Amino acid sequence: MPELDFDIITLGHGSGGLLTNRLLDQTIFKLLHNETLDTRHDGAILEANGKLAFSTDSFVISPIFYPGGNIGELAVNGTVNDVAMCGAIPKHISLGLILEEGLPVAELWEVLLGIKAACEKAGVHVVTGDTKVVERGKGDKVFINTTGIGEMHPKAAISAENIKVGDKIVVNSQIATHGMAIMAKRHDITFDDPIESDSCNLNHTIITLIEEFGEQIHLLRDPTRGGLAATLNEIARDIDSGITIQQTKIPVDTRVDNVCEMLGLDPLYVANEGVFAAFIDASIADSFVAKLKTLEYGSEAVIIGEVVEAHPGKVVLHSAIGGKRVVNMAVGEQLPRIC
Amino acid sequence: MPELDFDIITLGHGSGGLLTNRLLDQTIFKLLHNETLDTRHDGAILEANGKLAFSTDSFVISPIFYPGGNIGELAVNGTVNDVAMCGAIPKHISLGLILEEGLPVAELWEVLLGIKAACEKAGVHVVTGDTKVVERGKGDKVFINTTGIGEMHPKAAISAENIKVGDKIVVNSQIATHGMAIMAKRHDITFDDPIESDSCNLNHTIITLIEEFGEQIHLLRDPTRGGLAATLNEIARDIDSGITIQQTKIPVDTRVDNVCEMLGLDPLYVANEGVFAAFIDASIADSFVAKLKTLEYGSEAVIIGEVVEAHPGKVVLHSAIGGKRVVNMAVGEQLPRIC
Repeated sequence: MPELDFDIITLGHGSGGLLTNRLLDQTIFKLLHNETLDTRHDGAILEANGKLAFSTDSFVISPIFYPGGNIGELAVNGTVNDVAMCGAIPKHISLGLILEEGLPVAELWEVLLGIKAACEKAGVHVVTGDTKVVERGKGDKVFINTTGIGEMHPKAAISAENIKVGDKIVVNSQIATHGMAIMAKRHDITFDDPIESDSCNLNHTIITLIEEFGEQIHLLRDPTRGGLAATLNEIARDIDSGITIQQTKIPVDTRVDNVCEMLGLDPLYVANEGVFAAFIDASIADSFVAKLKTLEYGSEAVIIGEVVEAHPGKVVLHSAIGGKRVVNMAVGEQLPRIC
Repeated sequence: MPELDFDIITLGHGSGGLLTNRLLDQTIFKLLHNETLDTRHDGAILEANGKLAFSTDSFVISPIFYPGGNIGELAVNGTVNDVAMCGAIPKHISLGLILEEGLPVAELWEVLLGIKAACEKAGVHVVTGDTKVVERGKGDKVFINTTGIGEMHPKAAISAENIKVGDKIVVNSQIATHGMAIMAKRHDITFDDPIESDSCNLNHTIITLIEEFGEQIHLLRDPTRGGLAATLNEIARDIDSGITIQQTKIPVDTRVDNVCEMLGLDPLYVANEGVFAAFIDASIADSFVAKLKTLEYGSEAVIIGEVVEAHPGKVVLHSAIGGKRVVNMAVGEQLPRIC
């Protein structure tokens, strides 16, 4: 970090006056500059033609630094992925920071480096933003809102309405990794080889799949908060069919599985940040998985289940020992502030 | 408020599971529903052609209820106005809520009613959103991020680059009203006729002005945090000219002026939420003011100053008693969490 005029965030940095301008000049505008952001107007002017995807997320994860990432790169990847799940190419994001008085500027700098790296990797630009400061004890270090705009891929036809009985459900990667990386850190559970968050940008992989399989991809969703269980339940509610999943097919890292067991958690309910579930036409299932295995973040790709006529609105798990059980949405909160 | 399943926000309402879905179904989706929001996807799909304005703001105002408004309507108007200041017609907004555990749901409901009313008045829709919950003492009731998209008006040519020496500076309304409404409430300063926030949507008025005066309007800015002083200083920095303003012309409500004096504050530095400053070609100045006086929120319209060749980068006030002084940006924070 370069030498700055200040090493702690104060309320004055949220005043809209000289200190705010100094903070922005020495950190955000310095690190994230691009032609649009540099205009420093109240808003960014963009050129767009056709269909856009528009998605927002606030990130309140605690701690803000953890194995495999920090709240900054999480905030970029989270919104990039939400835009990608619409079938769109993420282009522009806004950055809303709520800082707590007393935050060391060195920590803000680290977070901004995470934002910068994630933007470069995903190919998006921060084009507009806002920074507020709240008093000590009225926030928690840093909260970040990112809102993204993407251009819909012309071949994308992503909608729960396109799902039909027989569709296969594919995931790209091991589940529950992000949530367990955070929980292991919170509970001081250590490994020689620590669990790292799977936070990543899925957009390049998604667009390659849409290029190749187009409207045969019926729905894409990234199961973050509430885990795969919440996502599949929401989809089952929205379609008039049931969903079955095979426990033995669902990929989970062994260390993740162990920590889940220690903490009494079911991986199906744990947050992911680098996982997507694709509902695809059965006719392309094998070639979709084969292709996905060759792509970034896709090496663990596997069919985990399908859409069935039975038990509409419900998700049923076929267990490793041959039983069946309904997978409900979790009622309350087992992992607060996981994203 | 209808009977809900719960009367207090808990961490479970941020879980992404059943409680989150119940909260959203019974509050946000119920009050703010529209065709796009109803799809409940991770993002909204929009149609757009041409130039767009894109702007974000997080609102952390305390208290969340005050004379003349609440944080909900402020959050909508603030972003609507930022989009309008770009010369665009605001269309879509995203809504990111960060709720503190323990928030009475009745308060959330009031805030959402403010959001609903402000959206209807401004003609925008909440098309996508996100709701998080943080533990008691890690937030403060409600923080709101809104991010807006607007369609650029074809006649708009709003840019600091268009400002030239001789341009007149017009404001539409009395300044410092929002900030002093909040400060009077915080300091329990009472009036028979209390000062109410001037928070309002300026978009309809702005668009009418752009329709009529087109590229003769060189720049539009709404002086929120940091007040008129910060905004004029930012503009003076961006152009290679100076700005002069006439103290006797700057409209301030008498009660607002009195509270400012009691608290030792200069109205030039106090936040506004219903004020804009327009930099316009001198040739249209009189007809611009005459027109603005006939429009919503424009009855106090007045020329307060102009762009001059002298003192480039500086704002100079000609005082009521005939003196001159440089108006700098405030260094620190006199009014934390005013928006």
